[in-house]
Amino acid sequence: MTGRPAHRPGSRAPTPSPLRPAGSSVRLAPARPPGGPASPVRIDALNAETAPAALRTAVTPARGFFVRSHFPAPLVRASSWTLAVTGEVARPRSWTLDELRTLPQSRLVATLECAGNSRKRLSRSVPGELPWGDHAVGTAVWKGVPLSALLEAAAPLPGAEEVVFTGADTGSAGPVRRFSRSLTGDLSQNRDVLVATEMNDAPLSTDHGWPARLVVPGWYGMAWVKWLTRIQLQHSAFQGHYQASRYIYQYHRDGKVVREPVTRLRVKSLVLSPAPGERLARRPHVVSGRAWSGSGPIRKVEVNVGAGWTSAQLTPGNGPYDWSGWEYVWSPEQRGRATVRVRATDATGATQPAAPEENDFQYGINSVHSVQVTIA
Amino acid sequence: MTGRPAHRPGSRAPTPSPLRPAGSSVRLAPARPPGGPASPVRIDALNAETAPAALRTAVTPARGFFVRSHFPAPLVRASSWTLAVTGEVARPRSWTLDELRTLPQSRLVATLECAGNSRKRLSRSVPGELPWGDHAVGTAVWKGVPLSALLEAAAPLPGAEEVVFTGADTGSAGPVRRFSRSLTGDLSQNRDVLVATEMNDAPLSTDHGWPARLVVPGWYGMAWVKWLTRIQLQHSAFQGHYQASRYIYQYHRDGKVVREPVTRLRVKSLVLSPAPGERLARRPHVVSGRAWSGSGPIRKVEVNVGAGWTSAQLTPGNGPYDWSGWEYVWSPEQRGRATVRVRATDATGATQPAAPEENDFQYGINSVHSVQVTIA
Repeated sequence: MTGRPAHRPGSRAPTPSPLRPAGSSVRLAPARPPGGPASPVRIDALNAETAPAALRTAVTPARGFFVRSHFPAPLVRASSWTLAVTGEVARPRSWTLDELRTLPQSRLVATLECAGNSRKRLSRSVPGELPWGDHAVGTAVWKGVPLSALLEAAAPLPGAEEVVFTGADTGSAGPVRRFSRSLTGDLSQNRDVLVATEMNDAPLSTDHGWPARLVVPGWYGMAWVKWLTRIQLQHSAFQGHYQASRYIYQYHRDGKVVREPVTRLRVKSLVLSPAPGERLARRPHVVSGRAWSGSGPIRKVEVNVGAGWTSAQLTPGNGPYDWSGWEYVWSPEQRGRATVRVRATDATGATQPAAPEENDFQYGINSVHSVQVTIA
Repeated sequence: MTGRPAHRPGSRAPTPSPLRPAGSSVRLAPARPPGGPASPVRIDALNAETAPAALRTAVTPARGFFVRSHFPAPLVRASSWTLAVTGEVARPRSWTLDELRTLPQSRLVATLECAGNSRKRLSRSVPGELPWGDHAVGTAVWKGVPLSALLEAAAPLPGAEEVVFTGADTGSAGPVRRFSRSLTGDLSQNRDVLVATEMNDAPLSTDHGWPARLVVPGWYGMAWVKWLTRIQLQHSAFQGHYQASRYIYQYHRDGKVVREPVTRLRVKSLVLSPAPGERLARRPHVVSGRAWSGSGPIRKVEVNVGAGWTSAQLTPGNGPYDWSGWEYVWSPEQRGRATVRVRATDATGATQPAAPEENDFQYGINSVHSVQVTIA
């Protein structure tokens, strides 16, 4: 090999080719997916709450929608991405993004909440778990292929009822380098569980799992695996880190450790207006917010401004997985500090506890939401 | 207080007021600073490398520029933000953003690198420190008020030569809740140290320290304090966490612990084209990249493609703090795998070591950069 100095100062540098990050099996695309400008390449995970402005509408704009990631978002190249169904199946299959899009699609509205939402209400923080305020929640229109159609095409072997989903994201959270979660037979046959490629009628953004994520309506976000690349069927129960060691309600009762999986959204409501600390004039105000449950429609929302619980007006959601809006006209009579509390009840009769029900990892916090304001 | 249910289904919810996050002294603005759409509100710090596309130009576009943050970016409201100079001064002063902008401004080009850049080259990772690849570096045009002018206006008391800078960002990294760093007298009198409000002729973005950050040209990024709110003069040496316990070169030599502060950019160069793993045709290629040092201009860049070191063509930077470009025409003669190495030498004669010089926190890694490619 020979070389000589280049004597072309000011000449245009050749266009660099796509880079492959060291130690990663995921290929980088030089440009971001849909419409993305050149952004810096995150080396840690993005975790962000829904923007206050994005909570004004019943459908949360994707740009302001909360993001929970365990590893940095992989920049997946559409042309080389495939989704494989493997393991205990008679016909292992994989689909390109274009192939997925040609299959029959479903579209539904569903509220998504992080299992750790509202953890910040508690005085005991959990090392390694994020101190979410109350806005790790949002609602979007999700569109994609029913998971059951993909499973059916691969012909699961008898008894292979555990379905394990793995994302393209990698990193190192202690010994764990991948995000994997499972669903069991019944749920994976539910026609509303989707392999979604669209959010609010646009392709998923990188942070929301582009090109495909799982949508498990009614469940907390840990089940909605992002950047999906592999679906594996197996006979035995999946015992991965995020299935068996995290996203469990862990208590200590009578000297024993009790552990239950985190699954459906607990019934919950938020006051969105007024905002905490707001100063209000002494005149009537529309107090408003949203309420949701993973176990059925919201049947009742009650507000307490100091003189007991009174029913608010409900605006039902669009379908069984959408949150409800609620409004209540409040005419404060005294100046000074006041507290607005809200409490929802769902179709099963479940309601919100007055105080948080703590557990080792502080998941599923759904106690009554209260907002303090000043009447001026 | 009295209340009645609102019977206005479908009515527009009142516009929520700006929120104040629980436990934070920083006020949130409802909209992001310059031109920002509603984005989700990060609850952890953003850390991201410069986008490959953004490294093609000598001045790195701000959107693709690397970001190093210790805490989540505070959303500072311009109307209530002030920069205070306090402590051992005869005339404590503070300036609003508008006031800062009316003062005489300086504008300079400077390369900024994270002290942890290239840490990922090392097999030993450091718990709690980020595994940066090689792209936590970029160059921008910085504009702002010389720090010395602000100090002069506040009239430091005799001997108050330690200047401590604190950002508006808060969080909890163990016991540490603020990012603070100091400069000593000599450096704080350097007219090129700026309190910058612009990057590449636009207001700083949130991630780059809006509304004001320190610019310490020639120094690693830990000195460039973002979201600056307070400048405090004192007599004694500052011993904060990020001054005395991090951003130090810590070695073990002859059974003793040796500790030296991380200061100026060590001389360094990168091959930017070809990219790692690229397949090249067997014809001449322009190999190119950049080189920089915090101790003076780059005097020489040498390339090694397997037959010894040969000088590359330099394109000097714009002023003393800007990186240099380099180019070299390579005519590979054999098919197969090949390695391109690059090595820079600065005006002091300092050059890059062949292998990384490890230290406890793996700062200042500036060994020869090598890129492996395939000649097809």
